[in-house]
Amino acid sequence: MSNTILLNNRPEGKPQESDFKFVEQEVGTPGEQELLVEALYVSVDPYLRGRMRDEKSYVPPFELNEPISSNIVAKVLESKHENFKEGDYVSGNMAWKKKQVVSTDNLQKVNPDQAPLSAYLGILGLTGLTAYLGLNEIGQPQKGETLLVSGAAGAVGSVVGQIGKILGLKVVGIAGSDEKIEMLTSKFGFDGGINYKTTENMKEAIGKACPDGVDIYFDNVGGEISDAVLFHINKMARIVICGAIAVYNKTETPKALAVQPFLVKNSALMQGFIVSNYADKFKEAAQQLAQWLQEDQLHYEETIVEGFENIPQAFIDLFDGKNKGKMVVKA
Amino acid sequence: MSNTILLNNRPEGKPQESDFKFVEQEVGTPGEQELLVEALYVSVDPYLRGRMRDEKSYVPPFELNEPISSNIVAKVLESKHENFKEGDYVSGNMAWKKKQVVSTDNLQKVNPDQAPLSAYLGILGLTGLTAYLGLNEIGQPQKGETLLVSGAAGAVGSVVGQIGKILGLKVVGIAGSDEKIEMLTSKFGFDGGINYKTTENMKEAIGKACPDGVDIYFDNVGGEISDAVLFHINKMARIVICGAIAVYNKTETPKALAVQPFLVKNSALMQGFIVSNYADKFKEAAQQLAQWLQEDQLHYEETIVEGFENIPQAFIDLFDGKNKGKMVVKA
Repeated sequence: MSNTILLNNRPEGKPQESDFKFVEQEVGTPGEQELLVEALYVSVDPYLRGRMRDEKSYVPPFELNEPISSNIVAKVLESKHENFKEGDYVSGNMAWKKKQVVSTDNLQKVNPDQAPLSAYLGILGLTGLTAYLGLNEIGQPQKGETLLVSGAAGAVGSVVGQIGKILGLKVVGIAGSDEKIEMLTSKFGFDGGINYKTTENMKEAIGKACPDGVDIYFDNVGGEISDAVLFHINKMARIVICGAIAVYNKTETPKALAVQPFLVKNSALMQGFIVSNYADKFKEAAQQLAQWLQEDQLHYEETIVEGFENIPQAFIDLFDGKNKGKMVVKA
Repeated sequence: MSNTILLNNRPEGKPQESDFKFVEQEVGTPGEQELLVEALYVSVDPYLRGRMRDEKSYVPPFELNEPISSNIVAKVLESKHENFKEGDYVSGNMAWKKKQVVSTDNLQKVNPDQAPLSAYLGILGLTGLTAYLGLNEIGQPQKGETLLVSGAAGAVGSVVGQIGKILGLKVVGIAGSDEKIEMLTSKFGFDGGINYKTTENMKEAIGKACPDGVDIYFDNVGGEISDAVLFHINKMARIVICGAIAVYNKTETPKALAVQPFLVKNSALMQGFIVSNYADKFKEAAQQLAQWLQEDQLHYEETIVEGFENIPQAFIDLFDGKNKGKMVVKA
């Protein structure tokens, strides 16, 4: 009975099931200040692909034959720490294990009465913080501006667009199916959407959807979509580079349009980030997100896959855009 | 006797003599508040290439069959404005004409006793301001960091590097001849230099010259050199996009390495700018530059071409790197 998922190979190109290995590992018992927890919901995220590569990045790479880790909501089965008790729910970065002993550093208690537990991996977790802080800190949104979001039906993108609307922006999303585009406008209140899979000329389509140009481009994908956006950025535009899922699986460093001439011509900014850069603003951001959620100003979509054994496949499916909103596995 | 240079064709690729036309135009006489001036020194700059294209940019394009304009130091021959008198020297954006009638808006008086007149087109003019403000406002230099400058022997690059040294940075320059590299280290105090024309593996050479990585990349060139730099940027690196001379003459939008993955991985920033974005800081910056120049902390190189009729060729020569430092024509 396997209870742990290890990194078996560093993926070449798109990850495969064989890059993961299921093994049975001893669970152990908690020492002083430690907890024994059981995973309830496991987050799978595109950025994990980067950690499967053996190269320096903002977080160290996963080790071969060691458990993969991601954000998890877990239930406390046994506590040796005075601030936690059996039956509490916690979230934080934990290993892909059914049960495990964890230190309480960097764990947060979460409240199942405030929102469904899975939301703490999404809109009330790093996903929501990423959307909120990337848009506000880098995007510097001003009422009336045009915000274009790629990967708009994804976990981060759908929140970015909604926050944009709350802040009084015109919001256009790019996504990969008519169903997703419909969801952007009907459920999330976007002003418009572009299905990049059925659009032949993205450059033209963006121009049509954003007749006043693009002031903020929140980029989750990179690749050719982002090339097409460059032709429409306004003076002093801000391009928030949140992710580049279109290129994460490339085995060679990909080519794209040279951005420098566009940036010079428009005095535009492009900034990559990871949400932990803004850790000092997490509390304020989380409060704002929770308030908007309670006020029914924010909505979210999630794709919940059942079964611990399906974690690798759920992760792989991210790269085919099979998720709507946050992809979560119910362990 | 031709006294005016018009834009004859919009250049395809590298500009040619035939893209310019010499004509004789009426000089006219100054009305109220106007001056009659004679051009003494004419600045030729890579950015003018952009204005020869018929596309929206930060400044409107030049019109066909109209005079080209750039920064010029001129002598006042006749004044109808109380603040200027015959014999004064002024600088500002003026037409490529030997003599012309100008409004005094946006003209500054310059002092030939403080520095040679040509310096007001370079280190004490927009060139110096571009270097100072781009490095400080976007680069946000911190003592001990590594600054890499491309186009380092050029007008802006050589000033950027010297300011970097004054501010306590480690400074490495990239330029196109051994003579220029020698000048960077001996005359301008750079810590090191890379001759990209004789270096086969730029990625490796940059790694060797910047063993602690690159914190600030001041980019005047774009193209393959800038691709190679991406592999060496540090966390929170700032890439100042000042120019992209390597691609100004391309007829198709050039391809380059996709920058997004590098920016995300390092939470790095890339910002294009034009010096007029920081117009509110011109006065402070100009004072600082003049002070450093007087203190002999700043040096400059200039390439002075003789003769009004050689303005087009001097401009064309910029794209072959024939200048050392600021390229100026003595009219």
